[in-house]
Amino acid sequence: MTPSPELLRFLKESDNFLIAVHISPDADAIGSSLALSMMLRGIGKKTVLLSKDLIPSQYLFLPEASDFLTLESYRDSGYRADNLILIDCNEMKRAGIDGSNAPKFNFDKIAVIDHHETDKSFGDIRWIVPESPAVGLMIYYILKQFDTKITEEMATNLYAAISFDTGNFRYENTTPEVFSAAAELAASGAKPHLIYSSLFEKWTLNRFNLMISVMNSLEVQDGIAIAAVTKEMLEQTSTSEDDTENFVSLPRILESVEVSIIIREAKDNYYRVSLRSKSSANVAEIASSFGGGGHKNAAGFRTQADLETLKENLKNKIKINLQR
Amino acid sequence: MTPSPELLRFLKESDNFLIAVHISPDADAIGSSLALSMMLRGIGKKTVLLSKDLIPSQYLFLPEASDFLTLESYRDSGYRADNLILIDCNEMKRAGIDGSNAPKFNFDKIAVIDHHETDKSFGDIRWIVPESPAVGLMIYYILKQFDTKITEEMATNLYAAISFDTGNFRYENTTPEVFSAAAELAASGAKPHLIYSSLFEKWTLNRFNLMISVMNSLEVQDGIAIAAVTKEMLEQTSTSEDDTENFVSLPRILESVEVSIIIREAKDNYYRVSLRSKSSANVAEIASSFGGGGHKNAAGFRTQADLETLKENLKNKIKINLQR
Repeated sequence: MTPSPELLRFLKESDNFLIAVHISPDADAIGSSLALSMMLRGIGKKTVLLSKDLIPSQYLFLPEASDFLTLESYRDSGYRADNLILIDCNEMKRAGIDGSNAPKFNFDKIAVIDHHETDKSFGDIRWIVPESPAVGLMIYYILKQFDTKITEEMATNLYAAISFDTGNFRYENTTPEVFSAAAELAASGAKPHLIYSSLFEKWTLNRFNLMISVMNSLEVQDGIAIAAVTKEMLEQTSTSEDDTENFVSLPRILESVEVSIIIREAKDNYYRVSLRSKSSANVAEIASSFGGGGHKNAAGFRTQADLETLKENLKNKIKINLQR
Repeated sequence: MTPSPELLRFLKESDNFLIAVHISPDADAIGSSLALSMMLRGIGKKTVLLSKDLIPSQYLFLPEASDFLTLESYRDSGYRADNLILIDCNEMKRAGIDGSNAPKFNFDKIAVIDHHETDKSFGDIRWIVPESPAVGLMIYYILKQFDTKITEEMATNLYAAISFDTGNFRYENTTPEVFSAAAELAASGAKPHLIYSSLFEKWTLNRFNLMISVMNSLEVQDGIAIAAVTKEMLEQTSTSEDDTENFVSLPRILESVEVSIIIREAKDNYYRVSLRSKSSANVAEIASSFGGGGHKNAAGFRTQADLETLKENLKNKIKINLQR
């Protein structure tokens, strides 16, 4: 994977960058932005990091993660960047920036660095590689094009980004290039076991109790695992919907499960549904038939429905999809 | 890490190898043996693979895993190897071979390839590297010294060995060298996501139900997580003690947990106890005070006791250890 020459020229020749992540930023978006910012500062550029949403507390272990500004603090700072770089997203809306919540931003140039499939063409300079396992890997290749040392802080941010988006080297996107990058990042000071622990082993006891409660409700049949998270479960365990993150992946551990579904009750009869597929089943098709979207192996949608009817509809559609 | 010249000479100049793994063989022992055997056969040597215990069914996905002979089938074959290679263990007893259950074996030479700390000096040729994350990594370095292509089958066996012994790149032993080897093995045809799934995502629904039931019994206090597996739980979920493998690692996911303990009821008032430490706590010391042993972060013992008394004793000893 080679960064586009246009992007490299832009980074080398421009200055005063605003680096912005998508709403609900994850370890890939945050770690990638921080490493890119550190490298640019290292070659004498000015950068400002922007996240519409507060950086989730579980990612504050990432070096310099507290440097992110919110829209408000950016506005209040009075500083205006000349150039924008969107990270892990490819339109202003995904970064949560629009005229209603932010000053009208004017930029000389806008660059987009992303690995999401898109039919949009936003941005002056676009480096979008849908087959890249993580934006972190793309930033790693950018860093390699600059004559700068990868510091322990950059390495930790990039390693975390790559570990997060490959499920710590367990997903199908775990390529030889991922391991080669991980080798250099670990040699540059990233600590694999500590980063793993920070990313994946920071559950609260309440969240653990919620997980047990949700898994107690798991139904497994015909290769399909369905569990529901009710408001009652959240109340009983003093948890919030955020605590259900990644629960949908837990039933993957079962050999017999092809598709795993978590249904979260948001309001009465209003549900958020997450789907994961281990196999050839295409959950993006299922989600899209309910008005949602996603990738073949990970998708989701929101719907108003009766829970039991919703479950039956889901099971029937997935059975047909699995039989194809 | 460079293989000892004596070992390389032995492999190059000798022939007719019996390659033996330890009792209750795991993915590191099995994958390492298979890859070494494939390489030796590739350069024209004769090898026979030996495992006292049947290869556990979850490891039969490893290429040519069904080639292992039991002691009985080796005896009955009439063939006698000239040389022995012990893999992932360093004495005959750990391989389950002795005069009482096997023909008196006579070998020209015995080689030991292992990564376990030992004070024994068994074997004519010894390559023992306690700091090696996996024997699979040692075999990888042996293969690199031979002028042979790493085939997809060898790569799959070695990748599985390394993935298993590093907890799929999550333990402290995940070094840059581990990632460099993984990069080459993946480039040689090992499929990370399929191997991960085969090693870690093959649970039965009964085992899952047992896990939920055990985790329902989890007590967490003062950094210590304790759960018990009772005979009743095994009966209710139609599972056996084997199904509890690695349950002791599950509470690691909790940020507040420093030490995790699983107590398994073997017979009335007779318990097998497994301990894991995430931190500075030394569970080998705890286990040894109960007549058991292990490493600083993973240890175990067996004892006859009243369950509640046992729990209290454990908690008190660990609290003292954590305070040091």
